[in-house]
Amino acid sequence: MTDFSFRLIATDGAARAGEIATAHGAVRTPAFMPVGTQAAVKGVHPDDVRAAGADIVLANTYHLMLRPGAERVAALGGLHPFMRWPHPVITDSGGFQVMSLAVLRRVTEAGVTFRSHLDGAMVELTPERAVEVQILLGADIAMQLDECVKLPADTQEIERAMQLSLRWAERCKRAFESAPPDRALFGIVQGGDDQSLREASVRALIDIGFHGYALGGLAVGESRDVMRKVVAATAPALPAERPRYLMGVGTPADLLAAVARGIDMFDCVLPTRNGRHGLAFTRFGPINIKNAHHAEDPRPLDAESRCPAARDFSRAYLHHLFKAGEALGGTLLSVVNLYYYQDLMAGARAAIAAGRFADYAAETERQWTAKQDFSTP
Amino acid sequence: MTDFSFRLIATDGAARAGEIATAHGAVRTPAFMPVGTQAAVKGVHPDDVRAAGADIVLANTYHLMLRPGAERVAALGGLHPFMRWPHPVITDSGGFQVMSLAVLRRVTEAGVTFRSHLDGAMVELTPERAVEVQILLGADIAMQLDECVKLPADTQEIERAMQLSLRWAERCKRAFESAPPDRALFGIVQGGDDQSLREASVRALIDIGFHGYALGGLAVGESRDVMRKVVAATAPALPAERPRYLMGVGTPADLLAAVARGIDMFDCVLPTRNGRHGLAFTRFGPINIKNAHHAEDPRPLDAESRCPAARDFSRAYLHHLFKAGEALGGTLLSVVNLYYYQDLMAGARAAIAAGRFADYAAETERQWTAKQDFSTP
Repeated sequence: MTDFSFRLIATDGAARAGEIATAHGAVRTPAFMPVGTQAAVKGVHPDDVRAAGADIVLANTYHLMLRPGAERVAALGGLHPFMRWPHPVITDSGGFQVMSLAVLRRVTEAGVTFRSHLDGAMVELTPERAVEVQILLGADIAMQLDECVKLPADTQEIERAMQLSLRWAERCKRAFESAPPDRALFGIVQGGDDQSLREASVRALIDIGFHGYALGGLAVGESRDVMRKVVAATAPALPAERPRYLMGVGTPADLLAAVARGIDMFDCVLPTRNGRHGLAFTRFGPINIKNAHHAEDPRPLDAESRCPAARDFSRAYLHHLFKAGEALGGTLLSVVNLYYYQDLMAGARAAIAAGRFADYAAETERQWTAKQDFSTP
Repeated sequence: MTDFSFRLIATDGAARAGEIATAHGAVRTPAFMPVGTQAAVKGVHPDDVRAAGADIVLANTYHLMLRPGAERVAALGGLHPFMRWPHPVITDSGGFQVMSLAVLRRVTEAGVTFRSHLDGAMVELTPERAVEVQILLGADIAMQLDECVKLPADTQEIERAMQLSLRWAERCKRAFESAPPDRALFGIVQGGDDQSLREASVRALIDIGFHGYALGGLAVGESRDVMRKVVAATAPALPAERPRYLMGVGTPADLLAAVARGIDMFDCVLPTRNGRHGLAFTRFGPINIKNAHHAEDPRPLDAESRCPAARDFSRAYLHHLFKAGEALGGTLLSVVNLYYYQDLMAGARAAIAAGRFADYAAETERQWTAKQDFSTP
């Protein structure tokens, strides 16, 4: 059994390329982790998620603890066989979804209590239970329970949640001592847009000691500028020998900007959610396939793509599938987007190794905005 | 370019095994043709439809003439490149959907006029236009326009529609003279549950002369018994050297019963529609995966299946996908069912060739009803 470890392979400015080892295989970083909220990447077969190039997927503790239940998943062997994904799995702590989805939630020192949106039952999620659930789910990487505050917020409120998250971090660390030795636990940096709070959070988390560190409380309402500033100021304070994970981010441009600032891991629903809504990410920028000017366009989304769905179907056909409400369209565009995100990260890894990440990012962004004439096929 | 032809390979009682040749490849009969209503087999990638074993898919003229439009599909090269299905394609005439879906329809000698359910425009579908649309769509096999009467109905009404369908059959045949020479046109036998009308319809259609003959106006409200009686009495009257197609049928048991009576081709939405609703067809009979007793069952639907989805996912996981509203569940069960239908037909073909179709049908049906204990995994 391989224990969790992280190896830095190359750096290029602040950008890092590396590899995480887990009992279920390697994760090449910078890594994009597709989101399988309810133990399924929405509409996409796990073989296609893998073929796209994903090394690891994220599943949501909040959803899975309510349905089908952590104990049931454990009885079925954990998420890996359940989802038929024998590769690495990361779970979040449930905290973020409790804050954003649950009604009647109450945060106390002990944890958070909320009403299940499924059956109305009151559920308690403590730091200890969050860890227990993630161990039951079989996650290779578990996250501490934290309280995530929507921005903008008062400094006082941000600090209160940050301090509470630190006390929960300690309790999660303790609870995690009973985990199988190959599992990893990440701490989550809070502190909103206040840099001194962010740095205090980092210092305290390093004192507790985690396998990796995440930046939480971003992509929660702040401007892109604020998000990038916080990442730029906080990442350097994190230990170089541990992976750094920016939670819930983001667009292709967000990913490149964060990689440049030293982030190693990302998760986001954008590629699949946008795919279901008809937005394809391509080397030439986003394409809204529902636009009328695609209706007669025989060209594929990208004839040079590694993704069969991007090469083999015409824009006219994809347009038709969305107009006709055929779910196949959302599946195909989700796959296109998963390939795009993975190829973006593969390109970043190669560029960092070659010491030309800044050029890669600049070329990639230039191609997005180069004027494409989609109106005359 | 291969012209349309049909070759009988073996007979076993009334059951027949054969092969249709088309410009886009062969269709082994008895054949089940998955339905791609709007130029997509709902939720299923065309590669999976092919891998399941389908030689041919059916697309619906009514839907496609309204959206994206026959002229647009023709400009894009026809249905084969549009759907990315380079294999044989059959289209219906649009008549059945006009009768069942369109509002404000009016049937006259000239044809049928109806209001589009998409934009409210009045659309006219004549026998000539039905043929033209199907030629534009690029169908290897086109169907005559007919009027299909729901059963039960008065004999007078059945006869009126049958005679009108015959006059339309003649006009379709004439219109089809301009079709590329590799295309085929099938006539449709009407006459409801009245055997003398059915036989009159058959005789008149043979006089006109078609590449194949379909039994229409069944699976439209009559009992299973009536349907089987009409098939049994009508099929022998059809020319042995032409393929026989029972439209819109049906369950696995319906298929075996009709093959035994000399039918060569079938289309039905059941495998995909039932799949989307959580019903899996398996060698052990249908399984309603939403039933609570599957929630903790680690077994696959059928560990011996040729279908990866039937082998690789636990019933517990499939159950979870349906409970959680994850579309992947409907896709996986649709694929399972398409494989099942194709394997059922492959088994029928082999059994006919071996002169043991009656045994095959009896064994298959016995296995469906053999008591399975699904409650104790």
